[in-house]
Amino acid sequence: MLEKNILTATNFEEIASWYEQASSQLGFPEKPQELYEAVNHIMQMKGKRIRPVLLLMGCDAFGGNIETALAPAYGVEVFHNFTLVHDDIMDQADKRRGLPTVHQKYGINKAILAGDVMMMFAYRFISEVPTEILKPVLSTFNRTATEVMEGQQMDMNFETRQDVSVEEYMKMIEYKTSVLLAASLQIGTIIAQASKTDQELMYEFGLKLGLAFQIKDDYLDAYGDERVGKVKGGDIIQNKKTFLAITARNTANEQQKTLLDQLQQEKDTNRKVSETLALFNVLNVPEKTHAFMEKLYQEALDALQKTSMKEEKKAGLQHMAHLIYHREY
Amino acid sequence: MLEKNILTATNFEEIASWYEQASSQLGFPEKPQELYEAVNHIMQMKGKRIRPVLLLMGCDAFGGNIETALAPAYGVEVFHNFTLVHDDIMDQADKRRGLPTVHQKYGINKAILAGDVMMMFAYRFISEVPTEILKPVLSTFNRTATEVMEGQQMDMNFETRQDVSVEEYMKMIEYKTSVLLAASLQIGTIIAQASKTDQELMYEFGLKLGLAFQIKDDYLDAYGDERVGKVKGGDIIQNKKTFLAITARNTANEQQKTLLDQLQQEKDTNRKVSETLALFNVLNVPEKTHAFMEKLYQEALDALQKTSMKEEKKAGLQHMAHLIYHREY
Repeated sequence: MLEKNILTATNFEEIASWYEQASSQLGFPEKPQELYEAVNHIMQMKGKRIRPVLLLMGCDAFGGNIETALAPAYGVEVFHNFTLVHDDIMDQADKRRGLPTVHQKYGINKAILAGDVMMMFAYRFISEVPTEILKPVLSTFNRTATEVMEGQQMDMNFETRQDVSVEEYMKMIEYKTSVLLAASLQIGTIIAQASKTDQELMYEFGLKLGLAFQIKDDYLDAYGDERVGKVKGGDIIQNKKTFLAITARNTANEQQKTLLDQLQQEKDTNRKVSETLALFNVLNVPEKTHAFMEKLYQEALDALQKTSMKEEKKAGLQHMAHLIYHREY
Repeated sequence: MLEKNILTATNFEEIASWYEQASSQLGFPEKPQELYEAVNHIMQMKGKRIRPVLLLMGCDAFGGNIETALAPAYGVEVFHNFTLVHDDIMDQADKRRGLPTVHQKYGINKAILAGDVMMMFAYRFISEVPTEILKPVLSTFNRTATEVMEGQQMDMNFETRQDVSVEEYMKMIEYKTSVLLAASLQIGTIIAQASKTDQELMYEFGLKLGLAFQIKDDYLDAYGDERVGKVKGGDIIQNKKTFLAITARNTANEQQKTLLDQLQQEKDTNRKVSETLALFNVLNVPEKTHAFMEKLYQEALDALQKTSMKEEKKAGLQHMAHLIYHREY
């Protein structure tokens, strides 16, 4: 059933390619050149445009005019890129999409300022909607933007903690990643003037899809094929609190907990990864993780099914969800 | 005439004290505690509240209800404090109002994130206005916020340039400082539903007042009494491109320019300050600066006079302008 939908749904590709074309007319001022060249450096890295395309598809699905949604779609992309610029400073990351990060190329001061001005342009583009829907669009975006910052803070807090619970972890990834996917879809539906129920279902669809996506990301890091630019088991090597690591700790007996602690100190990274994975297997971590992410993915699709949009539009969004969730990169 | 107004105008003190009380009910969430304690650290430093009080006075002057303007007033204060948090990182400043800066106390990462979330709360508070005026309020604020960032970039650019013109300098201080004072007043008048002409006059009043204030700041640094926490001639010691330094360079002949260049390299700071000031005096820099800032201050008061507000309200704002312009701290 799903496979059939994928074969017939061209909606996603059409919208993505329309966005690529149309958004090229939007952008930033030329002066002060020193500021906007730093902004353009990240904006010109071709990302996957997931968030703006979700916003446009959410609008299109309920009969909205995607032209009306173009500026807000670009706005969420600008916002997402702002978070990348500032996160890269905090993570001291040198590279992004194979290119130097903004602070690496232009220095920390310019990267802070470029991020700041991007956030303002995000608000500006997102506010370019008809007056009668400005308030709900803005309040959805504003709540979401705040949550993304709070999620980043939670993630920073986890670095120095051993006792992170699954609930705390889920709240962190919800805020740091999922709410922006959910809000993008919801803003699209608000622009299309869909019903409150449809708005909430679309938010739910995006939220669950984002959670499934993030947990799959954790899963692939440990069990996936090696991906471009990623080290297999990189999260294990860095002692990151992933869904897998937290689940392992929650299931482990005292002896196994001690072993997990010892493995965190292991200097030989090959041994560290293979022995941690062996312990994960004993604890049924892959099965548990797989079941959990599949459940979230199904809940996302269920929410989509409950909306009042036409079947062909559901197929398009299901296709998009499939691409996001089943990516191997 | 001005003195009489000051004696009768209690409007400013009343509004400032009402704001102090009323705004204490607004604020930030409690969690994540690590994020909002950094925010509260700067918000609790008692500043002069110039911007929120101007916003409220702008509203009150045209018969608006200052209760309606409370959240936006707090919003501009939050925004101003966000700029201080990020500017302090860029300037590597350790202290602000006698206390450690946010990045000094909590680290750069938390200061970046605290500033980011403050900007979002600024938008949130500023958006708490009746729907029918949300669009003009937001677009005034958004344009202004972008200009403040651009002004900061211009200021950074000037550090490595010798050939800054008066026009460029004026544009920089207009963006970095004045537009936010002007926009605060204008947002107040929009909330009061004043006429477009009155809105523009109030913006002009704030803009010129801000420029006069900033040039006076340059002037006092060289010619004022020593002020708390400031070194007399600090701008000269740091070779800052102030209105005075730019005017001196523009007026100097080749020989005097060479002398100015040599003084920039002078290691003995007492000698550097006294000889630079002596040259400024020869070039009539203090007279020129004084005349220029007085002209701006008069233009500010002229704009205020042209508005349609009642005379007693003009007196209150004139009093506020007097306090801002004639401060000696």
